Amino acid sequence: MCELLGMNANQPVSTGFSWRGFRHRGGANGPHRDGFGVGFFRHDGYHDFHDLRPAIESPLATLLGDDEIPALIMLGHLRQANEGSVDIRNTYPFTRETRGECWSYIMQGQLEGFEVLKLSGRFTPMGTTDGEHAFCWLLDQLTETDCEDSAEVCERLRQCGDRLARMGVFNMMLSDGRVLYTYCSKKMCWLTRRTPFATVTSLDSGEHIDLASRCGSTTVYTLLATTPLTSESGWQDMHPGEAMAFCNGERCDVSSPEAVLS
Amino acid sequence: MCELLGMNANQPVSTGFSWRGFRHRGGANGPHRDGFGVGFFRHDGYHDFHDLRPAIESPLATLLGDDEIPALIMLGHLRQANEGSVDIRNTYPFTRETRGECWSYIMQGQLEGFEVLKLSGRFTPMGTTDGEHAFCWLLDQLTETDCEDSAEVCERLRQCGDRLARMGVFNMMLSDGRVLYTYCSKKMCWLTRRTPFATVTSLDSGEHIDLASRCGSTTVYTLLATTPLTSESGWQDMHPGEAMAFCNGERCDVSSPEAVLS
Repeated sequence: MCELLGMNANQPVSTGFSWRGFRHRGGANGPHRDGFGVGFFRHDGYHDFHDLRPAIESPLATLLGDDEIPALIMLGHLRQANEGSVDIRNTYPFTRETRGECWSYIMQGQLEGFEVLKLSGRFTPMGTTDGEHAFCWLLDQLTETDCEDSAEVCERLRQCGDRLARMGVFNMMLSDGRVLYTYCSKKMCWLTRRTPFATVTSLDSGEHIDLASRCGSTTVYTLLATTPLTSESGWQDMHPGEAMAFCNGERCDVSSPEAVLS
Repeated sequence: MCELLGMNANQPVSTGFSWRGFRHRGGANGPHRDGFGVGFFRHDGYHDFHDLRPAIESPLATLLGDDEIPALIMLGHLRQANEGSVDIRNTYPFTRETRGECWSYIMQGQLEGFEVLKLSGRFTPMGTTDGEHAFCWLLDQLTETDCEDSAEVCERLRQCGDRLARMGVFNMMLSDGRVLYTYCSKKMCWLTRRTPFATVTSLDSGEHIDLASRCGSTTVYTLLATTPLTSESGWQDMHPGEAMAFCNGERCDVSSPEAVLS
């Protein structure tokens, strides 16, 4: 299948440490050798990078780890191809502009019979993956509805995700640069970091980092991934059928702390 | 202003040599220090790269020169900001998907009063440049008309280009991955290479390359740029108000060789 990585922060956070660990799953600690992509929503716009080489071998992946690109939202994807050939056009993240906003999307899973999902023609796949077809369909659903806030978008995505999950496996992350939405049909976990920051260790690379020396006291950010990135105890599993939204570094689709903890 | 680079080939051609020379205009031989971007149409899709650092200083620009990405069409842009802040969202190339095809676009110039160009809402700028507004307007014009072939698209772009050129300066390149279109309001030149290939020298870096050792005998490709990239004698200036289309490595908007030479 594939591996997903997401990050949402309340102020620009360096993405180097998380990426340097995660990329090991692309050919070293994992079989996801069919290319990779990373997208960064920054305060000044969105850009992304795609490569067909395994992330562990790619000089571009090394550069992205060294560059420490500060981002508000990050989406990373390591591919193990099943539906769709190993082509740049089939390499996540996929993006579309609507209403002057860039939407970026990554998926892990497999959707049997995805062709039955009717598309309006406003968004059309450029590649041949089930995931890009589902992305275009999701954007159709979101732009047909006028959602008032991120909680409504999240609920709409949960309904759509339930339909897609019935076709197989559908774990995804989606962002418009303000909110990071996620749906879990099988496997996804998340962790929110805030002061006091500790020294943490990557489960993939063994690299340590002293977060206190990197993050200001007001920094809050959440990491999401297919499986935990570090040995920290705060990683929480998402449940099958669950959708969540993260903004300003923390969960924002539920209003009361009790609901988050339940 | 900015510097433009374009390439169209009949089979994948390494873009390293042209890029390594051109990038010197981004901070070494030229004042275009406000970021850069490069897009590659390959046989397996499109991807692009954006950076706010001057091309001559950017490790990403170095990597793109070393990587020798083989492309059918390439679009490169070095920015010297006038309209719009130095943001990733204002960094060319800009892209949009329509009918399942990716369109990529670069511009050099300045359009006074560009806000009068009415947009349908199908394509909306994500940044604040005159060039992205013009790009969305051009895509509106192209998708409203059913052009039968690249010559018709080229003629439509010439009409649109004439209107834009009256607002100031409008030099641009645009591609859907099959055809590279260009419009010149002030400054642009082009050169077609085919067998027998010579050793050529970059005017920007002084680097030499023996093209015969790099290109097969059936390879044909055209380079376009704001000013000539090499000391070869074949560079031809475009005239103000001229639009051209290139496919399979050579000019394709005119059917007879006489017309090309006139």
